[in-house]
Amino acid sequence: MDIEKVNSMDFREFVDVFGNVIERCPLIAAAVWSQRPFSNLEDLEKHFFAFIDALPLSGQEGILRCHPDLAGPELQRGTLTPESQREQSGAGLMNLSAAERLRLAELNARYQARFGFPFVLAARLSDREAVPRELARRLRCLRAQELSTAMDEVKKIGRLRLADLLGSDFPKP
Amino acid sequence: MDIEKVNSMDFREFVDVFGNVIERCPLIAAAVWSQRPFSNLEDLEKHFFAFIDALPLSGQEGILRCHPDLAGPELQRGTLTPESQREQSGAGLMNLSAAERLRLAELNARYQARFGFPFVLAARLSDREAVPRELARRLRCLRAQELSTAMDEVKKIGRLRLADLLGSDFPKP
Repeated sequence: MDIEKVNSMDFREFVDVFGNVIERCPLIAAAVWSQRPFSNLEDLEKHFFAFIDALPLSGQEGILRCHPDLAGPELQRGTLTPESQREQSGAGLMNLSAAERLRLAELNARYQARFGFPFVLAARLSDREAVPRELARRLRCLRAQELSTAMDEVKKIGRLRLADLLGSDFPKP
Repeated sequence: MDIEKVNSMDFREFVDVFGNVIERCPLIAAAVWSQRPFSNLEDLEKHFFAFIDALPLSGQEGILRCHPDLAGPELQRGTLTPESQREQSGAGLMNLSAAERLRLAELNARYQARFGFPFVLAARLSDREAVPRELARRLRCLRAQELSTAMDEVKKIGRLRLADLLGSDFPKP
């Protein structure tokens, strides 16, 4: 898909295509449409990230809270968004042993109790061994630092999803 | 539901219950959770509206763009959110004649071409005769004035949905 095609979309089509670049936050794609025309694909991405960065702290936490758990019950039930389902499956999170699943559920619960938002990680850049290790590490971080790390992961996920939609010319993180 | 119950919810439960107070914008409920505890039901509503009012213009337009058309194809297909389906059906928009549907589709298209967002109206406070009349009237407004009118309608819809969730003590608009 080239940038002329993106710039020609009405807002319904744009939200249909880009509505889940930020997980379960079509509002963000719907807001970014106001900034068209986009000069190129990086410019489109820049507007997604600028909108996120301009949100108040509660809004950034809100984005995180719209993300599902990694290896949570929704993955097993198949009720994730198609993007999340693909990403988590690709990282091998469908094939965990019962003990691994239990360990992750316990870490997820401790993380959420501590920070008030779920653990967010670009699963496609990770794997089933790294996920619990990274979760345990980030669980020990300070809240402000952890919010910033988590928002960086949101952007990595968004960049990978944009790259899928826009073709391989778009550099991956 | 009383305010103690609301204040006891973790963010998953809160987003499940309040995620569609603002149509297809669970991000907003997820952000509002940061402001708990709420002193009463009006206080909860105040935080929803304050978050909306603090968004940049593009974000407010984004909220509008997450709304479906009134009497559009999604209503006939039954693919609206349950809240929208109920509201539009209750206003009699399922029972339009072919000519009335065509007229509304034409007005909706003109409105969207003019303003870059869909016509938003609290359908429960309207009916099948008033909807096209109001649409035709607002089509003639200036853009800034129309955005403000539309955001007031978003808040009326939100207030009615909160009232449904929280019980009849909560005054309706």
